[in-house]
Amino acid sequence: MNVGFIGLGHMGMGMAANLLKARHQVTVYNRTHEKARALAARGAKIAGTVSEACQGDAVITMLANDAAVESVVLEFEGVLASLRPGALHVSSSTISVALSGRLNEEHRNYGHRYVAAPVFGRPEAAAAAELTVVAGGEADALEAARPLLAAIGRKVFVIGDVPQAANLVKLSGNFLNGSVIESLGEAFALITKGGIDRQRYLEILASLFNVPAYNIYGALIASGQFEPPGFAAPLGQKDIRLLLAAADTLGVPMPVASLLRDRFLTLIAHGGERLDWSAIGGLAAKDAGVAAA
Amino acid sequence: MNVGFIGLGHMGMGMAANLLKARHQVTVYNRTHEKARALAARGAKIAGTVSEACQGDAVITMLANDAAVESVVLEFEGVLASLRPGALHVSSSTISVALSGRLNEEHRNYGHRYVAAPVFGRPEAAAAAELTVVAGGEADALEAARPLLAAIGRKVFVIGDVPQAANLVKLSGNFLNGSVIESLGEAFALITKGGIDRQRYLEILASLFNVPAYNIYGALIASGQFEPPGFAAPLGQKDIRLLLAAADTLGVPMPVASLLRDRFLTLIAHGGERLDWSAIGGLAAKDAGVAAA
Amino acid sequence: MNVGFIGLGHMGMGMAANLLKARHQVTVYNRTHEKARALAARGAKIAGTVSEACQGDAVITMLANDAAVESVVLEFEGVLASLRPGALHVSSSTISVALSGRLNEEHRNYGHRYVAAPVFGRPEAAAAAELTVVAGGEADALEAARPLLAAIGRKVFVIGDVPQAANLVKLSGNFLNGSVIESLGEAFALITKGGIDRQRYLEILASLFNVPAYNIYGALIASGQFEPPGFAAPLGQKDIRLLLAAADTLGVPMPVASLLRDRFLTLIAHGGERLDWSAIGGLAAKDAGVAAA
Amino acid sequence: MNVGFIGLGHMGMGMAANLLKARHQVTVYNRTHEKARALAARGAKIAGTVSEACQGDAVITMLANDAAVESVVLEFEGVLASLRPGALHVSSSTISVALSGRLNEEHRNYGHRYVAAPVFGRPEAAAAAELTVVAGGEADALEAARPLLAAIGRKVFVIGDVPQAANLVKLSGNFLNGSVIESLGEAFALITKGGIDRQRYLEILASLFNVPAYNIYGALIASGQFEPPGFAAPLGQKDIRLLLAAADTLGVPMPVASLLRDRFLTLIAHGGERLDWSAIGGLAAKDAGVAAA
Repeated sequence: MNVGFIGLGHMGMGMAANLLKARHQVTVYNRTHEKARALAARGAKIAGTVSEACQGDAVITMLANDAAVESVVLEFEGVLASLRPGALHVSSSTISVALSGRLNEEHRNYGHRYVAAPVFGRPEAAAAAELTVVAGGEADALEAARPLLAAIGRKVFVIGDVPQAANLVKLSGNFLNGSVIESLGEAFALITKGGIDRQRYLEILASLFNVPAYNIYGALIASGQFEPPGFAAPLGQKDIRLLLAAADTLGVPMPVASLLRDRFLTLIAHGGERLDWSAIGGLAAKDAGVAAA
Repeated sequence: MNVGFIGLGHMGMGMAANLLKARHQVTVYNRTHEKARALAARGAKIAGTVSEACQGDAVITMLANDAAVESVVLEFEGVLASLRPGALHVSSSTISVALSGRLNEEHRNYGHRYVAAPVFGRPEAAAAAELTVVAGGEADALEAARPLLAAIGRKVFVIGDVPQAANLVKLSGNFLNGSVIESLGEAFALITKGGIDRQRYLEILASLFNVPAYNIYGALIASGQFEPPGFAAPLGQKDIRLLLAAADTLGVPMPVASLLRDRFLTLIAHGGERLDWSAIGGLAAKDAGVAAA
Repeated sequence: MNVGFIGLGHMGMGMAANLLKARHQVTVYNRTHEKARALAARGAKIAGTVSEACQGDAVITMLANDAAVESVVLEFEGVLASLRPGALHVSSSTISVALSGRLNEEHRNYGHRYVAAPVFGRPEAAAAAELTVVAGGEADALEAARPLLAAIGRKVFVIGDVPQAANLVKLSGNFLNGSVIESLGEAFALITKGGIDRQRYLEILASLFNVPAYNIYGALIASGQFEPPGFAAPLGQKDIRLLLAAADTLGVPMPVASLLRDRFLTLIAHGGERLDWSAIGGLAAKDAGVAAA
Repeated sequence: MNVGFIGLGHMGMGMAANLLKARHQVTVYNRTHEKARALAARGAKIAGTVSEACQGDAVITMLANDAAVESVVLEFEGVLASLRPGALHVSSSTISVALSGRLNEEHRNYGHRYVAAPVFGRPEAAAAAELTVVAGGEADALEAARPLLAAIGRKVFVIGDVPQAANLVKLSGNFLNGSVIESLGEAFALITKGGIDRQRYLEILASLFNVPAYNIYGALIASGQFEPPGFAAPLGQKDIRLLLAAADTLGVPMPVASLLRDRFLTLIAHGGERLDWSAIGGLAAKDAGVAAA
């Protein structure tokens, strides 16, 4: 497939590389060009503008937040204005449910196809084509997106014909991860003050909850080492904000999400913007007066 | 080993049966005798009193709560008064850190050995000898307990020489399970109001958090079927109370645990005492005005 | 003073009438004209458009929310486009800190004076000129606004030269009132289940907290009668949203505000949009399984 | 009346002095005798033992907590064993609902009368006979207690014939005060980060909530001076524990009380045991990264 790829961050680099591996013709665009050059060596064409990345059958966007997506998609000579009728936009960014709904409407007006396909997984999973993809959109759009999604993910879940439902699932997943961090943080504060060895506790955890979320965040909290960030605190905060905005619109009270909101505010107020988001898992220990690990 | 076993509930039955399978000589005692008779067919000796179950090398207690343990261990002709010097008491009940500490002192005064060895796992795991055991006690007591614990569990974690540390780990584990229920409850409330199919969401969950806690509680919350209880709500409430008591003593604020406390009060105030404890995972949906599944 | 008044709701009617009493020349504008006619009898001039209400020395706006203020002030032929240079805009609406900041900038660009002067008090207090006014703005703007504010309030507090600081104070005040409602709700749930007579408890409250917030909300919660609304639940919800938005911008975690947020979502999800905002004070009793009063 | 008075702390001293002023014959007992001597000069008789203070028509106890009351009332040669049949025990200590219920039963078995009469007010109010008294008990017991209560309080509220209901009201009142502290703490964190002068904000508060709770705690939080304590943090923590215990027994979820519980744990974990309980009102600012006042 002839596909554009916009947004070569930690996640996007791996995803674009996997599209190339799957023998798609990929035209990449990034605000700073160095990253694009790394992919040129693997066969990618480099676009000088957003518009140039939108001349094929499809374009995938993988950007940091709503503002970046609005800028790239909605502004002058952006994706919306550049895609030809019938072409496909796959939005894999973690964005608000509201913006995804708006993109859906706009693309429909332009005669484009639109699939929201946010992904679960850390950069290593993106590099290894082991992402979990949740996709929403009209049947023909999903059909068109299938070979692209297959190239980047281990598993693709179709959530239905409302694209923004996929974004809601993505936000709910990050909420579940955030909840794991918070509850592990409280548990570690407790057992540490109870005189229990943290590494031994980690081993027990691995016996009970042997999945990446518990293993990875448990190890980070046990060590108290939140630098360098795998997923930075301000991004985690952004996702909880988007989650609470969606919950507000849908009328769903979520007390654990409210707690996470407060935790991120506390973390950032104490200089946490350069830490991994799991650093909120260190706040319970701090409240309990536990000395840093 | 010549061992007594006191408390043949859902968990105790399987544990005692596995001790027999491992060719220990087991003398069982239960308040109501029918359950004991079922084990007699497999080779158990039946004790008519607590004291009769305490005549061997060791006795294991697996009882419902602090009150039951106090009654069986501390009262007239109980475990404490009946064990011979040097004999071993393995307490596998989920009890308070404070009571476990007191048992430790009392047994030391009587010249007994004491191991706290609470277990993780549902009744099926107990029957299959697949429990996770967390054990605390003096080295020689742990050494003596080893063949017994090996017979009932898949894995035994030694937490150190302070027995009640094992009870704290057990309570913290139930707290983590309760946290999973609460956060799943909030996530399901959200995605349900967002128009997403619950079964499809369950499949995605299984891709992200493929461990029993998420699979089992996710399925219960998705279906809204909390009867019959696998682990009854009042027992879950008891464990959160014990956790908060330990956290209070240690000086650890645990906001998610406080939320769980309030959830159980709400559930029980609305007739939930006969439901599975995961029914607290239905309260977020109720607050959000979601019709029952 | 020759002053326009835009927004004749429950609050605005009384405020405009008091400006007339203080012998200001008042030109009133309201989206629906009936309310304006009632004031014509008392000497007000009726404006047919927003612009007509902006031809004097000053204009006061008292509108329901950010959207109404944006529409009246910022849109075509609105307040911004209509006021002459040097004229004064007094914004008494409860709006976001962000919008008030934006109004400040826009008015400065146009050469206008701008005072944010939100008010505390219920409609009866507005009618009796007994509002508490919190005013922010440049010294000369405040000086110009003084006779107007004196006419509507019992007391005027000057908060400084940053207008939006006054809006922050207003939101914090509504937060404190909301907190009173929540804590009274929890206390009434407790004493009701404890078998204590609610009216007797109200009398004790009046001995300890003899201020309107406790007296009024206490009586409403004791009776369980939340209709008709004095201050409707969606308005209370809006204010908590604005508060949390300001807290988010400033980086301040506010757990009680987060709880209020969740309470309003629950209330509205159960048909509470027509109730007084103090109906969130009935939710603790509902959670506790207390039958309605 | 011939009355004993046990417990000459900050509150008890003033109360006993006022009984003397009202021309009752007062026999005082305190664990340390110095305080009793101060009252001897005003006409009090000094008892050398609890029992000696229980030889009259009535005895009043004003002690720090459940443990002190259990010791003084229930132990060997305590109040229970010493009062003659028909005599009256007035318990003014802030104790658990459960203990007050137990005292009621025990006194009934001994043929005594029992009134629970906890008081609201700080030591200055006790000295000035301006306490608010909430009294529960059988009609004849209340009748007998009336002249005593009239001597110590400004106002006496009779709550009914179940003594421990008065204790519940007392705990709920301390909860409401604690809630005021928490919400003021959050409001001050917000307005401080918003650049607003704290003293100016205090003035506005006094216009909206002109009662001691807001005035006193507002001033303490605004200044950040929590020493010396008027009411020490461990006592406030104790009362929230007693409240939550009562709420647990009655089945009432109280999320603000849970938050207060966590705040006290955090405060004490950071060395707050010597501060006034309103120091929990400084924690929101700390979380928000506000430098101490």
